[in-house]
Amino acid sequence: MIVLGIDPGYALMGWGVVEAQGSKMRLLGCGCVETKAGVPMPDRLRTLQLGIRDLISIYKPDDIAFEELFFARNVTTALMVGAARGAAIISAAEHTSNLYEYTPMQIKQAVTGYGRADKKQVQQMVKLLLHMDDIIKPDDAADAVACAITHCQCGFAKEQFRMK
Amino acid sequence: MIVLGIDPGYALMGWGVVEAQGSKMRLLGCGCVETKAGVPMPDRLRTLQLGIRDLISIYKPDDIAFEELFFARNVTTALMVGAARGAAIISAAEHTSNLYEYTPMQIKQAVTGYGRADKKQVQQMVKLLLHMDDIIKPDDAADAVACAITHCQCGFAKEQFRMK
Repeated sequence: MIVLGIDPGYALMGWGVVEAQGSKMRLLGCGCVETKAGVPMPDRLRTLQLGIRDLISIYKPDDIAFEELFFARNVTTALMVGAARGAAIISAAEHTSNLYEYTPMQIKQAVTGYGRADKKQVQQMVKLLLHMDDIIKPDDAADAVACAITHCQCGFAKEQFRMK
Repeated sequence: MIVLGIDPGYALMGWGVVEAQGSKMRLLGCGCVETKAGVPMPDRLRTLQLGIRDLISIYKPDDIAFEELFFARNVTTALMVGAARGAAIISAAEHTSNLYEYTPMQIKQAVTGYGRADKKQVQQMVKLLLHMDDIIKPDDAADAVACAITHCQCGFAKEQFRMK
């Protein structure tokens, strides 16, 4: 099973692709779709939409797992991050209806066994689980990979995390 | 010039198409793209994206004017409305880079001459300006038409309202 994890953001949208075979996982790719401040919003949203669409056409994921957005600094930020997330969901939904969502706490729990783990602990466990030499950079890409790992580890329980 | 006005919303997205020739305006169509509560978010966003895309392919607007979202009840609502607005912007940006944005106060000012006019006053002026027998229903469609009228009345000043 190939899983695309997405950490939605407006300036940086993290992504990571993990292949799971039984309990074995390997990283196929990760990075960020980036949009520059000062560029008009319609162009930034198109960049995110097309960036995610391209990744999907390259990796052909079976499932796509989003990190859930729980808070934003304020309503203005929430409107922008919400739009960025919407752009990614639209590209994802074109490809498959297998869309899932995990809270940051669920991701920490799944990756480290501890729902209040800090960023460093998550990054170290991601490195271990994927047999990598270094931690993943930047943070947004690492978060997206952790989200993909979480989904891989859900197994038969994944239906409860289907995006509503 | 044909202008598509959009009042972004998640359950109801208002739209209205106005044709302007000099100072003359006429309504070509209006309504709402509707998404049902309980339907998964990816499907609702796709419905909004494809609904707006269809309208654009029917009416081929020169310019598209959005009512700006200034507030939302809370961050969760803002994330959802932001995603809905993002879906509409994506469809609009596929068609043209002529996207504009007006605040509710700018719309009231343009339509009634008074930035703090109430909904009824706006609806009555929309009815008058478009030589209609009745006010437009529902409110979301009426708001979208008012937004399109605002853009038509901007004339050479419209560049300052280009979406950033």
